[in-house]
Amino acid sequence: MTTPTTIAKYTPLLDKIRFPTDLRLLKEDELRSVASELRADLLDIVSKTGGHLGAGLGVVELTIALHYVFDTPRDKLIWDVGHQSYPHKILTGRRERMRTVRLEGGPSGFAKRSESDYDCFGAGHSSTSISAGLGMAVARDLVGGNNNVVAVIGDGAMSAGMAFEAMNNAGALNSRLIVILNDNDMSISPPTGALRNHLAQLAAAKADVRVTSPKDRRDGLTMNAAPDSLRGSADQAYTCVPDSTLFEKLGFRYVGPIDGHSFNELLPTLKQVRDARDGPVLIHVLTEKGKGYRPAELSPDKFHGVSKFDVETGEQAKSKPNAPSYTEVFAKSLIIEAHKDERIVAVNAAMPNGTGLDLFGEVFPARTFDVGIAEQHAVTFSAGLAAEGLRPFCAIYSTFLQRAYDQIVHDVAIQRLPVRFAIDRAGFVGPDGPTHAGSFDTVFLSALPDMVVMAASDEAELRHMVRTAADYDAGPISFRYPRGNGVGVEVPDRGELIPIGKGRVVREGNSVAILSFGSRLHDALLAAAELDELGVSTTVADARFAKPLDMDLVSQLAYSHQLLVLLEEGARGGFGAHVLESIARSGLLDRKVRVRCLTMPDRFVAQATPDVLLRSSGLDNSGIVDAVLEALGRDAVGAWRQRRAHQ
Amino acid sequence: MTTPTTIAKYTPLLDKIRFPTDLRLLKEDELRSVASELRADLLDIVSKTGGHLGAGLGVVELTIALHYVFDTPRDKLIWDVGHQSYPHKILTGRRERMRTVRLEGGPSGFAKRSESDYDCFGAGHSSTSISAGLGMAVARDLVGGNNNVVAVIGDGAMSAGMAFEAMNNAGALNSRLIVILNDNDMSISPPTGALRNHLAQLAAAKADVRVTSPKDRRDGLTMNAAPDSLRGSADQAYTCVPDSTLFEKLGFRYVGPIDGHSFNELLPTLKQVRDARDGPVLIHVLTEKGKGYRPAELSPDKFHGVSKFDVETGEQAKSKPNAPSYTEVFAKSLIIEAHKDERIVAVNAAMPNGTGLDLFGEVFPARTFDVGIAEQHAVTFSAGLAAEGLRPFCAIYSTFLQRAYDQIVHDVAIQRLPVRFAIDRAGFVGPDGPTHAGSFDTVFLSALPDMVVMAASDEAELRHMVRTAADYDAGPISFRYPRGNGVGVEVPDRGELIPIGKGRVVREGNSVAILSFGSRLHDALLAAAELDELGVSTTVADARFAKPLDMDLVSQLAYSHQLLVLLEEGARGGFGAHVLESIARSGLLDRKVRVRCLTMPDRFVAQATPDVLLRSSGLDNSGIVDAVLEALGRDAVGAWRQRRAHQ
Repeated sequence: MTTPTTIAKYTPLLDKIRFPTDLRLLKEDELRSVASELRADLLDIVSKTGGHLGAGLGVVELTIALHYVFDTPRDKLIWDVGHQSYPHKILTGRRERMRTVRLEGGPSGFAKRSESDYDCFGAGHSSTSISAGLGMAVARDLVGGNNNVVAVIGDGAMSAGMAFEAMNNAGALNSRLIVILNDNDMSISPPTGALRNHLAQLAAAKADVRVTSPKDRRDGLTMNAAPDSLRGSADQAYTCVPDSTLFEKLGFRYVGPIDGHSFNELLPTLKQVRDARDGPVLIHVLTEKGKGYRPAELSPDKFHGVSKFDVETGEQAKSKPNAPSYTEVFAKSLIIEAHKDERIVAVNAAMPNGTGLDLFGEVFPARTFDVGIAEQHAVTFSAGLAAEGLRPFCAIYSTFLQRAYDQIVHDVAIQRLPVRFAIDRAGFVGPDGPTHAGSFDTVFLSALPDMVVMAASDEAELRHMVRTAADYDAGPISFRYPRGNGVGVEVPDRGELIPIGKGRVVREGNSVAILSFGSRLHDALLAAAELDELGVSTTVADARFAKPLDMDLVSQLAYSHQLLVLLEEGARGGFGAHVLESIARSGLLDRKVRVRCLTMPDRFVAQATPDVLLRSSGLDNSGIVDAVLEALGRDAVGAWRQRRAHQ
Repeated sequence: MTTPTTIAKYTPLLDKIRFPTDLRLLKEDELRSVASELRADLLDIVSKTGGHLGAGLGVVELTIALHYVFDTPRDKLIWDVGHQSYPHKILTGRRERMRTVRLEGGPSGFAKRSESDYDCFGAGHSSTSISAGLGMAVARDLVGGNNNVVAVIGDGAMSAGMAFEAMNNAGALNSRLIVILNDNDMSISPPTGALRNHLAQLAAAKADVRVTSPKDRRDGLTMNAAPDSLRGSADQAYTCVPDSTLFEKLGFRYVGPIDGHSFNELLPTLKQVRDARDGPVLIHVLTEKGKGYRPAELSPDKFHGVSKFDVETGEQAKSKPNAPSYTEVFAKSLIIEAHKDERIVAVNAAMPNGTGLDLFGEVFPARTFDVGIAEQHAVTFSAGLAAEGLRPFCAIYSTFLQRAYDQIVHDVAIQRLPVRFAIDRAGFVGPDGPTHAGSFDTVFLSALPDMVVMAASDEAELRHMVRTAADYDAGPISFRYPRGNGVGVEVPDRGELIPIGKGRVVREGNSVAILSFGSRLHDALLAAAELDELGVSTTVADARFAKPLDMDLVSQLAYSHQLLVLLEEGARGGFGAHVLESIARSGLLDRKVRVRCLTMPDRFVAQATPDVLLRSSGLDNSGIVDAVLEALGRDAVGAWRQRRAHQ
């Protein structure tokens, strides 16, 4: 397969650009060549590192045009989500470093304030840029500054409520803020929602316009969307739309749609908007995700985030997993249950592929709902479904579930509605870094009365938990599971019902007890084997539930061991904290059992592979062994170290 | 002052209505009298109990019309926020019980599922009704039902992102859902935002129409907003609008605006929409908050929520506080700091009065921002302000801050931006009940790396914390304080800087240590005095910080006492849990100190006065004494009980 872009190692113009000041020295007619070189460079980089590709390819011309027209970093440029910021990073002093993007020690795959002055607001989650930009614009006005603030946001991100909240506020404050709507008709998956139809209508008007001459354009159609300051200008690149837009209802001036791959349209439009210096304006820019690289143009979903790939063929490196992914096990388990119970329905927020609900949707299309990037709505919509007797599974990554916390508290938990929360990507997530880590779900869910909080220790347990959740109608229930593949245990054809609030002893010993919640069980077993060899007889139990706690199991472990280790891949304040609080309450702590909590560290951890992160956090088998020996006392540690040295 | 509504004890029609089925037996021309009686009854009730008044008065006709036209409870009627549901409750079997609304054991001030089949979805927070309604509509479609689903939502609530998310999804799903936009141009305070201007424009069109005759109405203006099914109908009550609406851009049919106090407009419109049986439709209804009661019409803000009042004069009962409210101390402290530092700005989400920022805004109007019911945006907007070097104080009640959790994590904490969170209504809130309790903030904030989490133990401490937060620029910082009045200590003219992470010993003893976080300190001191009398020498310390913890103080208390009580007015998993986890980690727990955590109970607690709630939760002085004696052992308890009996 050939690609329209030559993967030029020869990048003479790009080689001259270290910072945007260098870019601004070029002539406008050289920018097309810069785009070509930048696109080639981006392809070359991501083909070797993996990472986000399609979004970056789609904004190559837009990125160049923005840095060319605006005085960054004095002018503030905010990239919503930030996974489209690779071209921006290449142009802002990080071209070489991008060869290690998303790797340990390398640049983040998202915009990040601590990385560069050009990253004025970091993001990994979507739809934050207008709020942040409005804050910056208002701050500028208060201190009497005159810089521009530009927020670039995708059409998918526009479906999130906070983008609407920000526009509603911006339209009223009338501060000078430029929003660029990067409309590629595609978030990670094709976006759904009424706004999408509205944008498509506006884009269609643009398509109509394309067949008319510039003169016809100006005379033949009403110009009701074109602002006075732009009207009648000679090089006008914007066009007109047939009716008013949603953005104008919210107090924005609307300009567009324009072709986001044409410097002839981008440059004059951006300059005019920059120089108009009036209230909030939205520029509707049409781009194509994966632009310029045929495989990505053809399969934008597949090329949103990629592993290393062959640029010529577009073929991505595939690791051969020994076990299915947790995501897949979840989806298949849910399909099994849904065949037996037609009340089961599934809800996701713009993540059908990531959550596995695309598989569910193939079997049960009418029972699958993708509500767009709208986690708050997803949860309360699920509550509405549950209130009418359905059995909704609401599948949202741990990190994104944070966006729906109030809805979980107020609409689900207080009303004891049986919404099932399937929490994927719980724990460390690797290359996506701290914005995507699934750290806090056990903390914020376990504090809620009447909530059932589970974690799967392996793929078979996940299957059991899907069935258990399907069956449980007394209130809300959740189950978390990590990113990546299972540990390789056999998965039964159908899950078993787990008694609510009951854990299980996996391995018996008599000196140390490790009580693990979720994904760390396998390493706990490895640690126990090592400890046994050192003469420390170790029990390992799988808590299964952070709420309700299996107090019988906890008591038994606390009574019959000298050390109880509480283990989880989550932030402090979660499972371990709740066990401690409960055994303190019951008086069990008054006995002389020692207790240690092993959790994710109390800092936001930069990207690295999950293995590295687990090791550096002391949550792998050797970290567990160390913690046990440390807790047992220095002598024990010394003996163990000596013994290890002799091996 | 006279009022247009006679406070009739004579309510012959209302007396016949126990349930909506009774209402439906009446003739249409009797409904106006029902409205008059219902309004009088509502006034009589709320004047004696206190509660929400203005919102209920504004929807008297709408409530009657809805129950008259729709087949509730088979048809689902969802009241957004729910504070306007008093007339609904009176008409649905709860007229007598409403005499104890919001009191212990009485009906909730909001819709509540467990209270009645007519309350199909509970709410205390705003903007959830469209999501819930869409879930119910989709559930109906899946099971082949044919009931109607009606969500009534205010114009203020429409500014929240989740309402937009729900509309965007509903417009695409095309499910049959009726949204009633109750436009009273007033949330609790006058709403801000661009949507408001749009609605005002639409309402103005209605006003224009009013002066034309029905015939002119139909012929003289374009009918682009009137759906085909309604067009040309004889009794049409809806009118037309001059341009398309935001709601149509989102795939809704738009009907209105209509006069929400006119049965001649309400009844035919509701019937026609009910019988049209098509996709999502929004009916724009204009109402007046406080309608029919002159004092409330004149001061809708003052009559949103009231204490007992004199119906004739409108004068509300005022308790004479011994101390200023925490809200007022916060506002005045912030004003003091803002006079000295022009970087200080203040942000609230539709709660200028409730947060005290109305006072701040009087002094610093250009530095005060009310962003509407939009907590997500409020937080990220604050992050944008902080990124540009300002010092934003974001004042949001504990319960509403839940809506911005992801923004706190992702936009503020990960970037270590110095946003100051002023968290009012932390702990029990009394008559508003579980939807408004400030239970979880310490839990969800203390889990975040780099967050500073404070709680004020009295009004002087609050003043110190405002200054400390203003001064702290290294990252995010929060301080919580309870609803109601301070304890009466002297408040200094200006707050002092508290060293970050340092608590203080307030009272020294040697047997039991009570470490209190926030509001319970005063009761801890009362308990300590009682314990001392019983021969139990008691230390009391004010932790001030849940994060970073004062580990020196904690160690000292743990080492030198036989019992450490960790005390807070918050959910489990908060301050006490973090102390336990930390002292377990440090090995301090291995010593033989006993530890107990006193927290809010692990259930959603129904409304009662804060005093009653604190007592029943064991968080008042006697509860603390009981817990200490219980922890010290049964003998101690016995001796104490005996001693008490002899007093």
